Amino acid sequence: MKDYKVLKIQKSVYEDNDKEAEIIREDLKEKGVFLINLMSSPGSGKTTTVVRTIEALRDEMNIGIIEADIDSDVDAETVAKTGTKVIQLNTGGACHLDAGMTKEGLDGLGIDQMDLVILENIGNLICPAGFDTGSSKNVMILSVPEGDDKPLKYPKMFRGVDVLLINKIDAIEYFDFNFEALDKRVKELNPHIKIIPMSAKTGQGVEEWTGWIREQVKIWKMK
Amino acid sequence: MKDYKVLKIQKSVYEDNDKEAEIIREDLKEKGVFLINLMSSPGSGKTTTVVRTIEALRDEMNIGIIEADIDSDVDAETVAKTGTKVIQLNTGGACHLDAGMTKEGLDGLGIDQMDLVILENIGNLICPAGFDTGSSKNVMILSVPEGDDKPLKYPKMFRGVDVLLINKIDAIEYFDFNFEALDKRVKELNPHIKIIPMSAKTGQGVEEWTGWIREQVKIWKMK
Repeated sequence: MKDYKVLKIQKSVYEDNDKEAEIIREDLKEKGVFLINLMSSPGSGKTTTVVRTIEALRDEMNIGIIEADIDSDVDAETVAKTGTKVIQLNTGGACHLDAGMTKEGLDGLGIDQMDLVILENIGNLICPAGFDTGSSKNVMILSVPEGDDKPLKYPKMFRGVDVLLINKIDAIEYFDFNFEALDKRVKELNPHIKIIPMSAKTGQGVEEWTGWIREQVKIWKMK
Repeated sequence: MKDYKVLKIQKSVYEDNDKEAEIIREDLKEKGVFLINLMSSPGSGKTTTVVRTIEALRDEMNIGIIEADIDSDVDAETVAKTGTKVIQLNTGGACHLDAGMTKEGLDGLGIDQMDLVILENIGNLICPAGFDTGSSKNVMILSVPEGDDKPLKYPKMFRGVDVLLINKIDAIEYFDFNFEALDKRVKELNPHIKIIPMSAKTGQGVEEWTGWIREQVKIWKMK
């Protein structure tokens, strides 16, 4: 018996994704539920970051997690071990979540008592960049081993996010990663982005990240 | 003045991608040109691997490279520095290459005198897995920092490749990566896959990889 639901979902039937996303966002605002859409490449540390975030914030707010994957539920299994409410979405073959799919996830999870929901999007730097999920804020993880040239190759993703977590920063000595060059490339695309160097493994930078969430949740709940 | 062409390409008009891929493959066989379709996540080391491969094999065979990206040409620029013939394909927003797009790349590159062409596919573990490009063999890179759980999450990709390069193996002590567990997970999906631990950075394992290519090119040229 699993501690979480697994939902098979289909591409949304809504013709106008942006409109549907706006409706979701207004409903979340009304309910005081702050939704983070967390995006990255496969293996950059989304799930470890989610677990770290839960550990840091669960004593002060109600948290729910939506995991999205093509057809596995390994991430939901990992998150469920923390005792946090989680739902797994399986998209079949789709490489992104749209607003309708996100709504299915929110409804399946049940968010009425929640303060913070993190949507762990499909591991991909292309498809998710094109779809508004209805989230309050968009966050991207780039891990150090992926390299500092990624803003040149995936500009749309870097342009569309509010926060960029540079994960696996503890490994920076080991890889040829120029933080200043990365910072410059990202800010040329997105001048107002907040960049947080972090290590979900060692805990470095996690306080700055969860501090940002704490502040945003407070702002979101203001009428 | 750039040392390489940049082609903007569109999703193919062919209704039957598999049939078109078969035509490409037969033509390549006829010409004795071995085409590798190289796939991976963003940042796992495709371009560094391509450069290493060129350095190891250019004295014994004619090599051409097709780089594919959403809208940049940084990889073609890197490869062009080796003096090797390269063409950059820009897919606009498409997250994979189909057979028709590959054909445009082969035609744009000019392959009549070539022995080996490497197609560096879009950085993505989902979309490229669904399309036969007409390649002779399919190769995937998984880098150590991405984690040993990826076969559980992207089974279709692991099922569809002939060779799996485990790149950044020099960093294995630094990450929580269980090689035996990875090997078992991959072989459950794909019992005949060849797995080569490698470091495009240090050169470890590159000889086994280029040895495999050398042998395959020889077999491909047999009538």
